[in-house]
Order: sequence, then C-alpha cells, then structure tokens
Amino acid sequence: MGLGFIGQEIARAALQSEELELIGAVDKSPSLAGKKLTDVLGIPAGTFKISSTLSQAVGRRQGVVLLHATGSKLPQVTDQVLEALSLGMHVVSTCEELSFPWFNYADLAEKIERAAQRAGTTVISTGINPGFVMDRLVATLGQVCGQVRHVKVTRVVDARTRREGLQRKVGAGLTEDEFFNLVDQEAVGHVGLVESTALCALGLGLDCDDFEEELTPVFAEEDISGGAFLVKKGRVAGMHQVAVGLAEGQEKVRLELTIAVGADDPGDVIEIDADPPVRLSIPGGLSGDRATANLVVNAAPRVTAAQPGLLTVLELPAAR
Amino acid sequence: MGLGFIGQEIARAALQSEELELIGAVDKSPSLAGKKLTDVLGIPAGTFKISSTLSQAVGRRQGVVLLHATGSKLPQVTDQVLEALSLGMHVVSTCEELSFPWFNYADLAEKIERAAQRAGTTVISTGINPGFVMDRLVATLGQVCGQVRHVKVTRVVDARTRREGLQRKVGAGLTEDEFFNLVDQEAVGHVGLVESTALCALGLGLDCDDFEEELTPVFAEEDISGGAFLVKKGRVAGMHQVAVGLAEGQEKVRLELTIAVGADDPGDVIEIDADPPVRLSIPGGLSGDRATANLVVNAAPRVTAAQPGLLTVLELPAAR
Repeated sequence: MGLGFIGQEIARAALQSEELELIGAVDKSPSLAGKKLTDVLGIPAGTFKISSTLSQAVGRRQGVVLLHATGSKLPQVTDQVLEALSLGMHVVSTCEELSFPWFNYADLAEKIERAAQRAGTTVISTGINPGFVMDRLVATLGQVCGQVRHVKVTRVVDARTRREGLQRKVGAGLTEDEFFNLVDQEAVGHVGLVESTALCALGLGLDCDDFEEELTPVFAEEDISGGAFLVKKGRVAGMHQVAVGLAEGQEKVRLELTIAVGADDPGDVIEIDADPPVRLSIPGGLSGDRATANLVVNAAPRVTAAQPGLLTVLELPAAR
Repeated sequence: MGLGFIGQEIARAALQSEELELIGAVDKSPSLAGKKLTDVLGIPAGTFKISSTLSQAVGRRQGVVLLHATGSKLPQVTDQVLEALSLGMHVVSTCEELSFPWFNYADLAEKIERAAQRAGTTVISTGINPGFVMDRLVATLGQVCGQVRHVKVTRVVDARTRREGLQRKVGAGLTEDEFFNLVDQEAVGHVGLVESTALCALGLGLDCDDFEEELTPVFAEEDISGGAFLVKKGRVAGMHQVAVGLAEGQEKVRLELTIAVGADDPGDVIEIDADPPVRLSIPGGLSGDRATANLVVNAAPRVTAAQPGLLTVLELPAAR
C-alpha cells in the first residue's frame, strides 16, 4: 500500500523475494489506481491492477502481510493500519513514527496494540532509519557489552546519491530563512530520529527520562553540483539533526544525522562506551531506499511467526 | 557451571547485570568445588560455595538459567545439558559445537531438542565467535540486502591481547611439525568456524550444500615479544583458519579467521555482495572473552521468554 518511490522499491523487492508472493497493490491516488502494477514498476509484476482500496486488493485471503508505505506521521496512517488489522492482516510499515509510537502517540499506540491483539496479528515499522542503522544494529552490537555508559551514532549521507525528493526534504538550495520556515511547518527534517533514540536506549538497557532534538542547516561552502540541482555557495546544502537521550540530566544516547548534498565522509559510525568498548564503521554508509525496501520485505515472513501485537524492530530476530 | 577462565568472566558479568541474580556456581574440579565463589573470583559474590553438582547448586528453584562454560565439544557436554533440562532449567552455553549442532551431531541435537521440548525450556549456545561476529551480526546486517550473492567475513586477532591459553591454542611457539601434529589431535585450532559458516548461510537465506575447512600456520617473520612468551622468528605465531560454504560448487560464504601473536591489522570486516552491497568494519575487532561473557549474560533473560527447544543465536532479538 502506497506506491510512491519507497512503495515501488518495496514492490520490486517483494517480487524478487523467494519467501513472499505479491498478491495485490493499493494506492488511492487517481494517477495510480486502476493502472497495471507492471506498467507502474516497469518490470513484470503479474497481471493485477492497482486497487484503490485495501479490501478490494486482498479479498478473502488469509495470512496476508500488508507492506505499508504511505506516510511518516502516525496520525495520518493510523486508520490504514487499523483497517488492515480489521481485515486480519499483519502490517510491516515504513511509517517512521510507528517505529516507536509510544514516544509521541501513546494513545494511538494503545489503539493499534489493542486492535492487533484482537486480530491476533502483528504490526511493526522498519526501515533503514529509523529501524536499523541507528537503533536495531546498535542494540545488536550492544549485546557484547556489559553496562553501557554512553552510545553515539553518527550517520552522514551525501544527498547527491539519493533521489531529488530527499534532497528537497533536507532543505538543499534554500536560504537560511526559508529553511527555518519549513522546519516550523515540519516540511524539512528527518522524521524518526527521536524514535531511534528511544529504541537505542531501550535496546541497550538505558533508562532515559528525557529526550531532546535539534535541527540546524548545513551551508554550501562553494557551489555544489552533482545533485538533482545546483546548490549555490552560501545556500543550505542540507541538514544536521541531533537527538539525545538523557538520564537524570546526563547524556546517555547521542544520534547525529547529517544529510546534505556534498557531505564529506559519508558513512555510519557506532561508538558504544562500555566494557568492552565497541566502535563500528560502515564507510560510505548503508544505502537508504533499497535497504528500507529489503528490511520491509525481510521482516514480512518474521511477523507472521511473531507474537500478536504492536512490536518494535528490537524484537526481530537476526536471521531471515 | 564451569569456572575456568570464561566461566569466571561469566560469573563476574552476571554479578554486574541488573537482570540476573546469581544463585549458585558449579564446578566438579577438586581445586574449585567447595571453595567460596567470592574467593575464586576475587570480588564479592555472595556467601555461597561452588558446588560439585548441579542439583546441589540449584535445589528446588524454578526459572533458573544455567550459564554453561565447560567445553567446546558437544559430545563432552551433552550429558550436562540434558541434566540441566531434566531439572527444568534453561541453558545458555558457550559450547562452540552447540551453536549449530545439526552440522556435526544431528543425533545429539535431536536428543537435546526433545529433552528441551519435554522440559518446556530453551537451550542456546552463544559467544563472540561462534555466536556473534561471524554469524549473528552478519545475518543482522544482511537484513538490508536483497538476494545475497556472497558473504566474506575476516577476523584478525592479535593473540598478544588475549590470555596465554588462547596463545597456546593457536599454536604460538610451535614448529611446523608440532603444529600439524596438534592439529591432527584437534589440540590446535578454533572450534566452531564451520558452525558459524552454516549459521551465516542460514541467516542470509543461502542454501549451501557443502562446507570445507582449512587450517594453516602463520609463521613469525621476526622474534615476536609482548605475548605470554617470546615467539622466535620462523616458529609458528598462530593460525589462519578458513571455512567456506558452497552451493552447487560455487562459494557463497567465506569466513577467514587469523589468530596469531603480532597479527597485523587486527579487526573484523564483513563484506556482503548483494544489492545493496554492505561493508562493515570494526577496527581492532570485537573483544573476545569479556564479550562472550556479556553475550551469555544478555541472552539469559531472552531465553526465558523464548519458545521451548534448541535454538540458535539467529533467533535472538536485537534488544536486551
């Protein structure tokens, strides 16, 4: 459900998976509903058309997992998740706020949890970030540690390697004023960093009682080409977002995310201050959109075997 | 159970964990049984003495997890595992061959599986290697990939940073003849590399039908000091062990483990050839003994909530 850029990547990944059978596609957008999925994806994808409603796409089938990629904000997608549960489906979503919904929307989380229990099915949200590189992978790595004193994760993405939509979403090309105006409108910025912080804390056994988040622009120090558009010197090249988790005023978790066109030294680094200390590096960084699609597809068989309810990626096992 | 070097590390880690309560210690060795655990560990560890039998240590308590570190070879420890199950206990073991026992001992695996089902408890083997850096972490990382074409993991350990027992176990100080004599007696070499290979294949969805393993000495190119003893130029400094998994004659999984005094560039590297490709590096490498102890202790609360039976680390969730 949801055949935007990520949804199409998910459909392609599902078609290539030996564990999944793609049985339908849903998008209520008039530009997509009614079209053949094959035509939209540009690869053979069966003969079915994109449905405008979930019940039409699924029919009376049992054991269906909804691969859901319609939005980042939980209030906007909750009804879709509840509808899927009422149809007896499992849900694997990319909705960033659903990755740890208790943080911002305890009421909606409770509603989804109850509906999933009633349906006897499982709901989870995953993706590369939130869902993997700044939380699930960190928690996995923390298994080798005793008590954790502090964890820091930095992710630097050169937005030129990503689609134009993402370059726009991090503010590339804007003036400083335009950037902060869009921040106020929540039109610029990465959704889910504070959810990753909460997941990190939980996964490492850290009792954070306070969370803070800050978003600042990164400016182009010279004209930057190579992206979807030229970013002039002095304009915003992207964003630097920091979320921290604190316990009794002391920082325990620090996640730093930089996404900017022309960002230096792209890559992911995890540093756990513990006994033993751990430092892990992924030069270049884990790829974004395709990795998200694979995480969704690889999670699907696992949720069908999981306990019913609203889970987090911290509950997923290591293996396919 | 088992208060050798690793067992003592596990006891220390258990004492520091907020999730576990250490209720007893078992070692039948006359040099340990009857002594106070506090005296053996050199830190406060309650008032109890090391028991010579499991039933004596556990009494009638329920919900006990046996932290088990008595040996690498499955036939040598199977009776201990079965006894724990007959007492209604869960088992988290460091026994390397128990990490994927179906590989070499399908009959013993079946016996343990049946006993665990009867007891309604869970058995798992973990540690840094096998159990984490060359299998569980690899499988976790593979969640971001589509179909995997090949995976290579290299782990290089400078044995000088490890205890003397490990330096001896990798052949440091031997002549080439002595090395291969001890290889024949299975007194030199790392146990569990082929089990890690099987876990890797399973965790990444690779159907390997053949596995091969090779062990060769690494020679000192000059006198090497800094270890527990001097290794003369020309003598064995350690070992290089390779295990591969193949599908229809084609290599799919390659694990390369080098443990030698003075080994260059210690560290762990995971390279997954897939879409997207993944390359992860842990400069210096994940520490061995303490990490193993923490992995055992962190797994203990999870097995009490797991399904009954004989599991692998691939089934463990990311979080504590």
